[in-house]
Amino acid sequence: MLSKNRIKYINSLKIKKYRQLHQSFIVEGAKSVLELLNSDFNIEFLLVTPEFQQKYASILSTHNTITETVTVQELEGLGSFQTNDSCLAVAKTKQIEFLSPDNSEYVLVLDDVRDPGNLGSIIRIADWYGIKKIICSHDTTDVYNPKVIAASKGSFTRVDVFYTDLTSYLTENASDKPIIGAFLGGKSLYDFSFAQSGGYIVMGNESNGIGQAVERFVTDKITIPRVGEAESLNVGIATAVMLDNLRRQINVPA
Amino acid sequence: MLSKNRIKYINSLKIKKYRQLHQSFIVEGAKSVLELLNSDFNIEFLLVTPEFQQKYASILSTHNTITETVTVQELEGLGSFQTNDSCLAVAKTKQIEFLSPDNSEYVLVLDDVRDPGNLGSIIRIADWYGIKKIICSHDTTDVYNPKVIAASKGSFTRVDVFYTDLTSYLTENASDKPIIGAFLGGKSLYDFSFAQSGGYIVMGNESNGIGQAVERFVTDKITIPRVGEAESLNVGIATAVMLDNLRRQINVPA
Repeated sequence: MLSKNRIKYINSLKIKKYRQLHQSFIVEGAKSVLELLNSDFNIEFLLVTPEFQQKYASILSTHNTITETVTVQELEGLGSFQTNDSCLAVAKTKQIEFLSPDNSEYVLVLDDVRDPGNLGSIIRIADWYGIKKIICSHDTTDVYNPKVIAASKGSFTRVDVFYTDLTSYLTENASDKPIIGAFLGGKSLYDFSFAQSGGYIVMGNESNGIGQAVERFVTDKITIPRVGEAESLNVGIATAVMLDNLRRQINVPA
Repeated sequence: MLSKNRIKYINSLKIKKYRQLHQSFIVEGAKSVLELLNSDFNIEFLLVTPEFQQKYASILSTHNTITETVTVQELEGLGSFQTNDSCLAVAKTKQIEFLSPDNSEYVLVLDDVRDPGNLGSIIRIADWYGIKKIICSHDTTDVYNPKVIAASKGSFTRVDVFYTDLTSYLTENASDKPIIGAFLGGKSLYDFSFAQSGGYIVMGNESNGIGQAVERFVTDKITIPRVGEAESLNVGIATAVMLDNLRRQINVPA
């Protein structure tokens, strides 16, 4: 039987302020929780249905994690945003102090990406294309928002996300590598050669694109060629197309 | 003052059965309605706020459309799924009897794409990449679902969507052009040459991919190379990457 305190605690973690206070976040659903169990995140506790517990008994037995068995009704009653009839985990957030590209590595930079679905989608895309680091402006949505975690489909366990003041960050760190920004009206992506040096690929806000403060650091303004008439592409879609073009030219560093 | 009958009629159009019965659908929000006004769709009526009416008076004056002025409260009270403080249109659906690729044209084929957000996103992507025709299995979600219309960001006005039995369709129509299907475990997209002949690009269901009945028509099984660890890409993302690779090789026919 779930205690009132535990229900209250889990509900509080839907709000950024309380995630930051407790340094904890929620992971929902079988796929995401299984990825979490297979990662280096510290798990505070698990709520599992008897069905989930039975099905994944061997995986659960290798983890020394507080596990409470709950009914499907209790799990769904937690009022989470998605249907979830299998399990819920509360894990400790990672306190990432700094990230920058190693050697020939490419990293993503997000300037004020606001929609949780978009950020989750971008994390999943980064994971597909072997990008392991995302550097976000402070106003980019919180990676530990349950909607971001859900949309990342488990990829949040393999991609690190670091929040910083992009202007200071780029001033201090990014002088020697290309800073490639996605703009409308830049050079064609199809004619662009990604440098072997690695670098930064910058994506901007859903409505306004890359802000002026970050734009002045961009060394290469790149556009995805449009042959039809849609006004724009969604930022997740544009990220995938940029990274696909990168990977056709340059594989991940060994 | 909105009549009860009109409110009831608009609400009924959120349901596929009534859209088919009335051959009408809803378009919400300024951007989508402006694109609708600029298209060849027949508009049944418009509900506009005084602000919208004033701002777009010159556009509205060139249309001989029944226009009712409503308050923001009335518009939001229509209980539509998105915030909308400017306008709503009811337009007649297009009865598309058949579509196939002309000359060197490429068309999209969707086998059981279920999520309205995905279908809307795919329509927007198709529009960006100059794809004008989408051929859907009967179980693909309805293009006139308000969520599809909203996610297409106006691109529904420029891309035609045709529903058919794909097995019969491909049997009868597709013997002379390549049928390129997105699969996990096919040939690398990066090594694939799109034929000048035009053809079909087939995308499958969110969970199960392309079904067996359609798979046997596929002439080229293509995979988007993965260098990282995400299990899969969303079908909208995968469509964008397929079309981006197509357009790097072959522009739209003149």
